[in-house]
Amino acid sequence: MITLAEHRVNFFDTDTMQVVHHSNYIRWFEIGRVEFLRKAGITLNELLADGFSFPIISVEAKYLSPARFDDELIIETTPIALTKAKMEFSYRIYGKADGRLMVTGTSKNVFTSLETGRVIRLPEKYQVKLAKALED
Amino acid sequence: MITLAEHRVNFFDTDTMQVVHHSNYIRWFEIGRVEFLRKAGITLNELLADGFSFPIISVEAKYLSPARFDDELIIETTPIALTKAKMEFSYRIYGKADGRLMVTGTSKNVFTSLETGRVIRLPEKYQVKLAKALED
Amino acid sequence: MITLAEHRVNFFDTDTMQVVHHSNYIRWFEIGRVEFLRKAGITLNELLADGFSFPIISVEAKYLSPARFDDELIIETTPIALTKAKMEFSYRIYGKADGRLMVTGTSKNVFTSLETGRVIRLPEKYQVKLAKALED
Amino acid sequence: MITLAEHRVNFFDTDTMQVVHHSNYIRWFEIGRVEFLRKAGITLNELLADGFSFPIISVEAKYLSPARFDDELIIETTPIALTKAKMEFSYRIYGKADGRLMVTGTSKNVFTSLETGRVIRLPEKYQVKLAKALED
Repeated sequence: MITLAEHRVNFFDTDTMQVVHHSNYIRWFEIGRVEFLRKAGITLNELLADGFSFPIISVEAKYLSPARFDDELIIETTPIALTKAKMEFSYRIYGKADGRLMVTGTSKNVFTSLETGRVIRLPEKYQVKLAKALED
Repeated sequence: MITLAEHRVNFFDTDTMQVVHHSNYIRWFEIGRVEFLRKAGITLNELLADGFSFPIISVEAKYLSPARFDDELIIETTPIALTKAKMEFSYRIYGKADGRLMVTGTSKNVFTSLETGRVIRLPEKYQVKLAKALED
Repeated sequence: MITLAEHRVNFFDTDTMQVVHHSNYIRWFEIGRVEFLRKAGITLNELLADGFSFPIISVEAKYLSPARFDDELIIETTPIALTKAKMEFSYRIYGKADGRLMVTGTSKNVFTSLETGRVIRLPEKYQVKLAKALED
Repeated sequence: MITLAEHRVNFFDTDTMQVVHHSNYIRWFEIGRVEFLRKAGITLNELLADGFSFPIISVEAKYLSPARFDDELIIETTPIALTKAKMEFSYRIYGKADGRLMVTGTSKNVFTSLETGRVIRLPEKYQVKLAKALED
């Protein structure tokens, strides 16, 4: 399952170079990731309520072409690995109007216990949804 | 007691108009407020550990002159009212080099219970410090 | 004319108190303002291309009830004054699901020349659109 | 030459997990990079005034241990490659008090013409400074 989320570039997303500040795409990867999980039937609030955290352990981005104020962007999120122990995604952010590819990237999250902070495995109910979303 | 904090404008603080985005000064008022409390002997972590929250209930800012990337700023924080029930501050943000006044503003916070979310009064130990900081 | 814009609260919009950081509502007022102008037939990029800037000169917000991660919000923008010299708006941000009022506020912008930085008046073509949007 | 910059974690740097949001470390890499260049005798404002931009083309970060509100951090910046065509840095962000390593990462920037947007080479005066900073 590949998911698409939309974001229109705000004035406050840009910087003195009159383009989007590069740190914001890292935030938009998160928008894509949250949307992917929502479509897989998993909300972060449910994970938190069940005592799980999902810290990010790595992120990387390549910047190909700049987005500017008011551009409408598509955040495309593709799962690489989704297990009871970790989530790995890749991202492509491109212009809605012209399809121009702006940024690509990847991220890895693990699951931890909110109580102990240690890495743990998600229970069956989440695992089934993640496995299905990966296959679809 | 009036306190001064310093902030150098980052690239990511600016926007397409090549000046600081106006929302960031609201964040820098918070830097001033936290610094004031620290100098008064109060840390927000201690308040949280004691079960108190300190939600902001209002803020206002007037923008007089824009700051730009790499400008060194002074955040001047002056207490207006500091009681066991609320904190009210005024702010002046100006250039370190030339004293140019850029932004003025005010904020009001109340104290609430982390457990119930209701407005409550701080105990004696905090009240004494706040009263002293207001007088100094 | 009153306009509505939507925003879903991101993880990066929240802070250690597990609610939206108060500075972000100031950013979302801007989302509302940009949307209002777009519906009035004015884009900020067109203003910039025509040599006009639109610096904010004041903002104020009252915080009534906190928004949390994943909440869907409505940003309601109402014009107070729209002339060839300035724009004044009021805002109400409330929950999409329950209508709970979270934040209210106002802002004032003026129009300036990108070249000189001085306050100037917008030409007829903008003035007509602003007047119409105010009346509607 | 390795440079150190300091940053104290603000309330607005944290998120609902009560730790620093991962995107902010990417911003702090920039603080480190700007500080490195300043110590090398190069300011971004001078580069801009001379007609050069310095877009980032890639960034990556590994998250080892979370920082929290009010933590004092050190941003350590080490040059990997500094030529007239590009800048490559590595970063380590750690606790000032305990030396705990929180985040590591790298970034690559190229130099482009503000006028044409094309990749170009910096003139001698910058190259000399960059070469010296790399050697030191």
